[in-house]
This record gives sequence, C-alpha cells and structure tokens, in this order.
Amino acid sequence: MRALVFHGPGQTSWEDVPDPSVKDAADAIVRVDAVTICGTDLHIVKGDVPEVTPGRILGHEAVGTVVETGGDVRSVRPGDRVLISCISACGRCRFCREGHYGQCRGGGGWVLGHTIDGTQAEYVRVPFADLSVHPLPSALADDDAVLLADIFPTSYEVGVLNGNVRPGDTVVVVGAGPIGLAAVATAQLYSPGRIIAVDLAASRLDAARDLGADATANADEEPERLVEDLTDGLGADVVIEAVGVPEAFEMCTRMVRPGGRVANIGVHGKPAVLHLEDLWIKDVTITTGLVDTHSTPMLLRMMAADRLPGAAMVTHRFELDQMEEAYDVFARAGDTGALKVVLGGPQHDTVAVPPQEQ
Amino acid sequence: MRALVFHGPGQTSWEDVPDPSVKDAADAIVRVDAVTICGTDLHIVKGDVPEVTPGRILGHEAVGTVVETGGDVRSVRPGDRVLISCISACGRCRFCREGHYGQCRGGGGWVLGHTIDGTQAEYVRVPFADLSVHPLPSALADDDAVLLADIFPTSYEVGVLNGNVRPGDTVVVVGAGPIGLAAVATAQLYSPGRIIAVDLAASRLDAARDLGADATANADEEPERLVEDLTDGLGADVVIEAVGVPEAFEMCTRMVRPGGRVANIGVHGKPAVLHLEDLWIKDVTITTGLVDTHSTPMLLRMMAADRLPGAAMVTHRFELDQMEEAYDVFARAGDTGALKVVLGGPQHDTVAVPPQEQ
Amino acid sequence: MRALVFHGPGQTSWEDVPDPSVKDAADAIVRVDAVTICGTDLHIVKGDVPEVTPGRILGHEAVGTVVETGGDVRSVRPGDRVLISCISACGRCRFCREGHYGQCRGGGGWVLGHTIDGTQAEYVRVPFADLSVHPLPSALADDDAVLLADIFPTSYEVGVLNGNVRPGDTVVVVGAGPIGLAAVATAQLYSPGRIIAVDLAASRLDAARDLGADATANADEEPERLVEDLTDGLGADVVIEAVGVPEAFEMCTRMVRPGGRVANIGVHGKPAVLHLEDLWIKDVTITTGLVDTHSTPMLLRMMAADRLPGAAMVTHRFELDQMEEAYDVFARAGDTGALKVVLGGPQHDTVAVPPQEQ
Amino acid sequence: MRALVFHGPGQTSWEDVPDPSVKDAADAIVRVDAVTICGTDLHIVKGDVPEVTPGRILGHEAVGTVVETGGDVRSVRPGDRVLISCISACGRCRFCREGHYGQCRGGGGWVLGHTIDGTQAEYVRVPFADLSVHPLPSALADDDAVLLADIFPTSYEVGVLNGNVRPGDTVVVVGAGPIGLAAVATAQLYSPGRIIAVDLAASRLDAARDLGADATANADEEPERLVEDLTDGLGADVVIEAVGVPEAFEMCTRMVRPGGRVANIGVHGKPAVLHLEDLWIKDVTITTGLVDTHSTPMLLRMMAADRLPGAAMVTHRFELDQMEEAYDVFARAGDTGALKVVLGGPQHDTVAVPPQEQ
Repeated sequence: MRALVFHGPGQTSWEDVPDPSVKDAADAIVRVDAVTICGTDLHIVKGDVPEVTPGRILGHEAVGTVVETGGDVRSVRPGDRVLISCISACGRCRFCREGHYGQCRGGGGWVLGHTIDGTQAEYVRVPFADLSVHPLPSALADDDAVLLADIFPTSYEVGVLNGNVRPGDTVVVVGAGPIGLAAVATAQLYSPGRIIAVDLAASRLDAARDLGADATANADEEPERLVEDLTDGLGADVVIEAVGVPEAFEMCTRMVRPGGRVANIGVHGKPAVLHLEDLWIKDVTITTGLVDTHSTPMLLRMMAADRLPGAAMVTHRFELDQMEEAYDVFARAGDTGALKVVLGGPQHDTVAVPPQEQ
Repeated sequence: MRALVFHGPGQTSWEDVPDPSVKDAADAIVRVDAVTICGTDLHIVKGDVPEVTPGRILGHEAVGTVVETGGDVRSVRPGDRVLISCISACGRCRFCREGHYGQCRGGGGWVLGHTIDGTQAEYVRVPFADLSVHPLPSALADDDAVLLADIFPTSYEVGVLNGNVRPGDTVVVVGAGPIGLAAVATAQLYSPGRIIAVDLAASRLDAARDLGADATANADEEPERLVEDLTDGLGADVVIEAVGVPEAFEMCTRMVRPGGRVANIGVHGKPAVLHLEDLWIKDVTITTGLVDTHSTPMLLRMMAADRLPGAAMVTHRFELDQMEEAYDVFARAGDTGALKVVLGGPQHDTVAVPPQEQ
Repeated sequence: MRALVFHGPGQTSWEDVPDPSVKDAADAIVRVDAVTICGTDLHIVKGDVPEVTPGRILGHEAVGTVVETGGDVRSVRPGDRVLISCISACGRCRFCREGHYGQCRGGGGWVLGHTIDGTQAEYVRVPFADLSVHPLPSALADDDAVLLADIFPTSYEVGVLNGNVRPGDTVVVVGAGPIGLAAVATAQLYSPGRIIAVDLAASRLDAARDLGADATANADEEPERLVEDLTDGLGADVVIEAVGVPEAFEMCTRMVRPGGRVANIGVHGKPAVLHLEDLWIKDVTITTGLVDTHSTPMLLRMMAADRLPGAAMVTHRFELDQMEEAYDVFARAGDTGALKVVLGGPQHDTVAVPPQEQ
Repeated sequence: MRALVFHGPGQTSWEDVPDPSVKDAADAIVRVDAVTICGTDLHIVKGDVPEVTPGRILGHEAVGTVVETGGDVRSVRPGDRVLISCISACGRCRFCREGHYGQCRGGGGWVLGHTIDGTQAEYVRVPFADLSVHPLPSALADDDAVLLADIFPTSYEVGVLNGNVRPGDTVVVVGAGPIGLAAVATAQLYSPGRIIAVDLAASRLDAARDLGADATANADEEPERLVEDLTDGLGADVVIEAVGVPEAFEMCTRMVRPGGRVANIGVHGKPAVLHLEDLWIKDVTITTGLVDTHSTPMLLRMMAADRLPGAAMVTHRFELDQMEEAYDVFARAGDTGALKVVLGGPQHDTVAVPPQEQ
C-alpha cells in the first residue's frame, strides 16, 4: 500500500510500504476512507517530537472500514465503517479503568502515528480495537466524522470540561485554529452567556463568529481590555488556551477572573511564566491534558443529530494520493486559509477486501 | 487600649491607641483573649504588602469576647466567646453568595490587619460580625480555637479540598511550617494512603510525623526520588505547596503524577516557571487560593470533639503585653523552633465590659 | 391598599387592607407592578396548606418598584425596579451560608404568601431584602421577569440541576404545565440529545414542542413505550416529575435507565409507592427539593440576553384589580388553556411613592 | 471437584460436579482458597431469586489461586493469588467504560453464582478475568481479603460514596449485619463527626461500636428520637439502609435532615412507601445501587496497610467440605452470632495444578 513515511526532520514521502497485518488478537486492520492532518503532525515533521523515529507512518485521525480483526475483537467486524480515535486504550490498566485512556499504561494512549504506524496510509493497524474505534451511523458523512477523531473530543474534554464551562459563563478562547474553533463550537453545549475568540488572523475570527463566538478580538489589539470591559473589570469565568506558546498561556492567566479556570489545550514546547505573585490569592484553577476520548460516543451522536458543526471546518479536500500537496496547503495555513484538510476518495459503498487478500 | 501598630517597613510598636468603636450597624467590638502571629504578618512588617499603610494595627487571627454589637448584628451578643475569622464577609455580593468569602467584593475578604485595624490589640472592631465571627463551645480552649482563625481552614480548603485528597491517595506536603503541618493534620480527614512531608528543618519534619505524616524527606536530599520510589515511579496524587517560593512550587509540579493535583497554599512574591513543555500532556490540575473559611464551623466541631489536633502546634505562649518579644521569637523560628506563638492572659471567666464604658 | 386575602378554604377576596410598612431594618416595601398566580396558590385556596391562616395575603411571585427600605438594606434603594423572589433568605443561618436559601432557618425560605403577607397586592413587605430581591435590567420586560420569581429557578434547580442533565442525555419531563414547560426550556441550557414531554393535554404538548421538546407523548398512550423505543429499551437518563401525583412519580421511576436520575419538582399531597424490589439494583438517584433561587442572577442575565423564553408562557393578562377573574381563568386551565396569567398595569415609568406618604 | 449446587427452593447439596474449564479466551480458572456466604445466597436458597436455576453452583465471593487462563488474559497468570470480585466486567460496553461494572451489558455484572456457576466450589471459571480478579499482595491474609469480594466495596460504594459522607457529618447506619458493619468501617474513611448504628440485636450493636460507631440504638427503642436529640432536631446528614425491608427504608427517610442523603444498600423484595407529601420540600437525595467494585483496588491497598478492619468481622471458620454446616450456622445468625463465615483450608503455599491436569 502507499503511506506517508517520516524520514527525519523535514523529510516525509508518500511511498510504497508493506501492508499492515494483525499482530495481536485485539488488533483491527482498517482501510482508510478519510484522513486529516493535525497541527501536531507539522511539529513531528519539523522534528519537535523525538519519540517519532524515521520510518514511522504518520497520522492519528481517520474514518475507515474494518477489513480484518484479531480473534479477541468483539465490538466490530469486517465491513463496519468506523471512526479511528487518536487515542487507543488497553482497557485494563489503572488509567483506562478510570476512563483516562489518554494516560493508558498498557500499550495505548496516543500511539498511532507516534510510536506505531498511523493513519496517513491506505490501511492502518489499530491496536485494542474494541476500545479504540467507534462504529459510525450511516447518516454521518466522512468529512464530519473525521473531525471526531481528535479535535472535537480534545477541545471538548481538555477545554470545555476541564474548564468547567457553565450556563451563563463568559468564556474566552485564545487561538482560533481548528482546536480553538472546535472549542467555540463545543463550549455551546453548556450555554455560556458569551464566547470571546482571540486570534491574530481576521479570517479565523470570522470563522469563530460563524461557529458561534459572540465577540472576537485581534490578539494584537488589547484583547485583555475587551474582556475587562465586557465583564465589568472582573475577568472571564473560563479561559481556554488553544495556541501552545508561552505568551498565549500567560495572557490567559491575566484574563481569568478570581475563582475562574484556565484550561490549556495547546501543545507547548517551552515553559511559561506563572505569575504566582498575582495568582496565589485569586482562587484560580489551571488544567492541562491530553484527550481521553471518553466523550467521543456522545459527540458522535450529537454530530449525527446535527447538533454540532462538522464539515464546516473543512476548507480543503484532496485525494489520498495528494498527501504531500495537502501537507503543503495545511502548513501554509496563513496563506491558504486552511483549517482542516481532508483526504480520501468518494465514500465507498461496498465492503472492502484487504489488499493482501486480493 | 494597647495595640501593635505598623509604622512602615521594619517598624512596629506596642503602644497606646484609641479604643475601637462601632462604626456600622453590622460591626462587633471584641475583646481579644488570645491572638497569634502569622507568617504573613512578618511579610507585612518587612514591607512586602504595600496595601498595609503606616498606622495600621496588625493581626488577623484571634479568640475573644464580644463586648458591643451594632444594631444589625443578630448572631452574637455581648458576652459571647467567639472565634474571629481571618476573613470577613459582607454576605451580599456575588462571591459571598457562593461561599467565596475570601473574594468578597462588598467590603470583606481579608481586611483585618490589612486594610482595617486588626487583632493584635486589646480590642478589635470586626465588620459584618454575623458572618465573620463564630461562637465557641466552652469545651474548646483558646489555644486550640485560635488556630481555627486562619491556619486550619486555610490548609484544609486551599490545600486539602482544592487538592481533592481522596481515600488511599499519596499526598505530599512541601513545607512543614504551621500551614504545612495543618495540611498534614487536615488531609487525614480524607484518609489518604500515605502523607509525605518535605522541609529543610529536621524539627519540623519531626512535628510532621507527630501530626501523622507517614514519611518525611529533607528538601535537600532528593525528595523527588523518595516520592518516585514510593509510587512506583508514577508520582503523587496530590502535592500541596506550603512554602511560597518558586523552587518549592516547581518541585511540586515535578512530583505530581499524571492526572494529579497541585494545590498551592504558599504566599508568593515572585513568579515561578511552569514547565508546560512537560505538563501539557499530563492532565495536571493546579489551584491557588485565599481561604474562604466556609469550612470553619465544621472544623470547629471536629476540634471540639478532639478529632483534630490544636494546641499541639503552639510552641510558645506570651502575655498580650509581650507582643514585641513574641514577634521576635516567631521571626527567628529557625533558632527558636517556634511554630505558633499564642498571646493572651488566662482565660477570662466574666463578661467583659468595653473600656470606653467603664 | 387592595390585596387578595385568604379567608379560609374556598374563600378569598380582593379587598382593602392596611398598607405594609417596614418592620425590620432588613425589610423593603415594594410596589407590585406585575404579579402572577402559582399552582400552589390554588392548593392554598383549597385549604391544602394548613400553615396559611385566614387573613393572609397570598402570592409569592412579582416584579415591582422599591418604595422604602429599612436601615440595614444596602443593595437596593427606593426607585429600583426589582424581581421579588419566591424565596427570602436571612443570609446568616447554616443553610443560607451553603446557598440553600429554600431551607433557611433564620426567618426566610418560602414565607411570602405563606407565613407572611404576599405579593398579590398593591404593595408588599419583603424581608431580608438584600438577599431576597434582584435589581432588574431595564431591557427585561415585566412579563418575562415575573417568570423568574419562581418557575424558572424552580424548574432549573430542582429539575435540571438536581437531575444533572448533561449534553447528549435523553430527558423526559412528565407534566407540561408552567413548571414542566420551564423545565423543557431550561434543560436546553445543558444540550440534552432529546427532550420528551408527557402530558394529558394536547395544547400543553404543543406548547412543549414550541419551547423545544423533541418528542411528546400523551400520558394516556403508553409514554413508557415511547421512551423505551427511543432509548433502545434502556430508559431515559433523566426524568423530571412536574405534576405532583403518585401515578406521575411512579411512572418516572419506571422510565429511568439504570444509573439514571429522577428529579421531583411536583408538590405532593400523598405518598407514592417506591418499587425498591426493582430499583434497589438499578443505581437510581431520586431527588426532591424546594427551590433555593441561587441560580436567579444567572437566569436573569440569560433571559435579558434572549437566551431563555419568557413571556411566551404568558397566556392571559389582567389588571391588578381583576385578581378574582384571573384566579378563575387560571383555576380552569383545562378549559381556558391558561399557562401563566400575569396581572399589573402598563409598565410604570416614574418612581413610585408609597401610599402612606401621599 | 466438589461444589455447592442449588436444586430448587430449600434444596442445596455439596456434591461432585465436573471441573470447570476455559470456555472463552478471556476466562481464568481459579482454585478457591477461601470463600464466604452472603445474605443474598440465603435469599437464593429460599427461592427468592428466580434467575438462579436448579443445577447452579452458588457463591460470588472468594480468594483463590489462578490455575489456568485463556489466551486473551493479560493481567494474571497461573500461580497468581487473586481476589475474585462479585462483579465481572466485559470492559467494552457503555457501562463498563464509565466504571459502572455492576450494570455491565456485555456479559458481566453480577453473574457468578447467579447466572453462571459460582465460587462455593473447589474451582471456579471467572469470565473477563482481566477486569474481574485482582492480584493480592502476600501481606494480605485470606480471611481479610475475602471480605473485599463484596461487602467492603458494596458498603463503600453504594453506602458511603452514594451517600456522599463528608468530614463532620452525622451518619446513621440502619442495620448492623456484615454490610452495615462494613459501612460503619468504611464511612470512617471520610471522617464523619458521628456514626450512629441501629439494629435489633445487641451483639451486632456491640460489633458496630468495636468497628467505630460512636452511638448505637436498638431499632425497637425510638432510634429516630436519638438521631433527633443528637442533631438538635435537624436529622442526619447521611442515612444508610443496610437491611432490605420497607420499614427500615422508611425509617431512613424520616431520619434524614433537609438537604441530606439516603443511600440504600439493602436488597429489597417488596415496595416501600415514599412519603412525598413530607419529602417533596426537603431537598432529599435517595440512591440505590449494585456495587461496581471500581473501588476494590484502593480498598485492597488500604486493608493491606491495616487501615481497614477485615477478619474482625469473621466469626466462624470452616473447611471447604463443611459447606452445608457453614450455611446452617450463617442462616441461624440470630442464635449463632454469625457475621461472616469463611471456608477454606490453611493457606496454600505452592502453585496449584488444576485437577483435570493431574
């Protein structure tokens, strides 16, 4: 089959590789029908994620069709159309038993496209399939569903739930890229009184408004003053960091009200300054987190019922073979206006047969 | 009357001042029977707390006897023996309605010995008396009760409750001064599996063991390794910061397990470094806070029932007139071994009459 | 002034009574601008509520204008337009400190039109005014605001919050009278996946659909089967009882899924049968409650921002002097289709002067 | 092997049956080293549990040694000493993913000695072994550990956690049999201010005092008045039902304070009367539940550290072959004073080999 292989910093290619096969009784082999690229993939390509070694197939978000399962897989079978979650779960370790799949100690967690081969390929092996893929209702299109692999559960769990958004709250989302936009969308499940989106790009602020933000602020034009004005000087109830740089995080800690919450979703590469001399007395809660995807079944039902926006965030569409072009468009988001790019052929309507069996 | 007056950095004196009087219908005038000195008072004397202006009477912890009340006070009356809470509460503002008295916007919060005259005096005016003093059962001695004015509710609410200590948890308390020791004591209300105390002073670690710590570590001797060893490399469920310096806070964030909580109690004067490049993926919750004292009635009942240690933490006792000597002993805790110093005469057994009425 | 006076079971009259006056420093006298009738008032008139004694002025929901305040009132002053909450709060007792105003032990709780004179009058004395009235933004019309005195906070706190409605849940509301309809409206703040309303009256089921119910069932036509069908036989996540008869409550306990919640809002006069032989193993949570009105400030902001429906539930409007006619229309809701009836003149635009001062 | 077989109401015998064998890749075969009898077993023998059909081996609590595992079992292997939980968990269904193993829809839940053969035998087949047995530390004796199979997690999860016991609370436990006594013991993990045990048998009230109850009341001598007296007429914060008859449950609902919780643990065969005419206004929460055993790992660590009493509740000890005698002693607890009876030989110190392989 063909797949996007990482060959070291700055080097990837869409090339021929061996087909994956069942290695463990809990595995499923899934044909990839739709796949997307994550900001994290760009970090990997730059060489920022040393656990990813040359030879690795990238990608951790996809929708596909099961073509083969190990003997221990009980929940899905060949022919099932499934969402491949960015998080795999052994289901047995202490963390999995608590629903903290992202922290799995039994071989799961974020492994796809990280420590094992991923989804930017024609086929992928998914470990612990029973807890790591989700059957999809036919009503849900690939372009909607693929956003449930990572950005929707991430923004919802790590942003909205960790931030404890409540009805009537003032919520600030700093960063209006795909994750920030998904936070704008999923925060509305808790009916905040007001959502304020902050970004540098006018086009992203427009997208935030389209997805339900009540106010927007350019990050260069005193967003803190806007928050102050809108909250009678008190600050926001919840501030969600969806950028991943120290300046954005530090801005969040200045925008939050006494007793408020800062929920960090951003992937950070550097430390930030925590102004404890101001914050010690302010009753502030700061959270970090990798997604667990425990909310995926609920989000999936809500998206199937048109209660969440999906494909609205997909700005570009490619064939699977255009992987390198798609990376280029996504990497130059400032120029191309890309939010999410989705790759994959038209939706298949027959049960797939794995290539090695043809 | 006589009181400890702040006259600018490094300058205080025990001197004659006018007696306090009822200024507002919600006030109570309380004769001070027992009073203590807080680490925060030392910061004020050094000049670290600019809101405290020259002429201010210091002190925010005391036990006393009500001698006069304003027309709107309904819960206590002259002759009642009461605990004076370090936090006053207007009871009407948004924060008070949520029980967040420490963040009161209606004239309360931490005001005693801070923005109004405090308790290190023969008499003190307590605003919003109905919500700011607590009647004391006769069974509770002054030396026990005075510890409920600040350190017990602070360590319990800001350390134990914010840290969400649960049965079986591994809890690390960094700093074994009075607040840290009270955290060791109150954490036991939730039956953690193991409490580890960390400090530089052997005498304080001994005190921590006496109060229930299961293990102790000298801060200079790789406490992080001890935590690692005791938790199979995972880290602690809850880490409580009770020092107030960046190094201690940063150590806390290294000791916490994935999914764990860091509860900061320390009063900080400088920023700390937050290693988001490590923490973003760890599902960590960090909290800060000023005490609300919503737990004071419960702690009071528990101490009256001998379910919490009290006077065990009182190392030195003075007459009220020895205020300056008491400050000296407390400020040189490293030499004197002082934990809490309590000042006050033998317990009074008659209803006091306010001096101005004599 | 004129007021609706209860003279024993079945006997009320709109008659001349003395004007109310400030009795306590915490009182406010409020001119009633808009008032409504509650189902509970009908129970009182029938004689079902023995605490209500002859001579009592009825009513516990109103919007009005402050005309006089006692010396201890700090939050409102004459001329302020306010919502009179159905619950008064002393602010000092154990329950008030926890925000459980409905259980106030200090003279508050549900007292208006119950143990003290109420709001179905030209003027009313409101005790503990600081915590018992809420200033109204000018943007909020009387007919919207008056619904915040009781039915919105009641349905939200006792139904939606006690029932712990969460995004994606299946919620059943049994009873589509004013309280049930307000539950349909406020449940949406938590984005349930599906709301099913059950009632006997087709007109009320229509109203439920208008307010956002996704499905409706006539109580006589096997509503339990509909719930079963929609939930794959599992049952509803949350069932809210908004009727107040044993049969309705028992139906709720049959509709709930294992692990689900039954939140009772209905005012009951008789015991129900609790089928513990079925329920003991089902992990069910059942709650009851009187409203605390802690959520009123948030609901008020949400209604002012058009995020909650208000006057949509008002089916009939009367002058204050038409009180007896309004009771008649409301009591015969089956015939008249009445949901909420509101009484009061056109909105006043000048500060009122109390009658006794004219 | 030999096992206790149910042959219809009133008929059981300790007899020869075929050895169990691995039927599914997730199974483990465990040699039973210590087993106990549950009150539920007596109900089964009487014929009260129709799902239990003639030919079924009874028992759902045991400690044993793994002798064989299916190919999919990853957490334990032959030779491991394990606790067999009363609840099995498929780990894949919606309920298992939420940690609600007791409600498992995938073939687990309470199945042992109920819908599949149980533990009152020399060997037992345990399905879904990875999530249904717990490796035991060598420090923990069989007689302690076997109490963790059911009564400790049941009383803790369904009584203490559902009842939300908090520091300082007044807790009443109605019923001082094994489950009630375990509730007395585990409630102390949350440091209630006072535990009151209620039972008809003086010997059980003595046992309750030994395990930490602060006060006891004979169920015939106005226990409600005692609770009233001890709580200034308010009622208890938490009342735990550990009997399973309507009268006991109804007593619980009369003893609870406004805003309090009633946690039902009792297995009921008949409906109770719920006095909604009194309770609708009281803000009461009532919970029911089957244990999930999510707390078993924590309880196991706490018992191994001597932080929970174990064998103290074991009043009688038998050899496995004395099963019928043990049932007789346990069934006549009123005469024999039996709390828990444990059966099993002296602790084995060699790895067992399954009989069919000998």
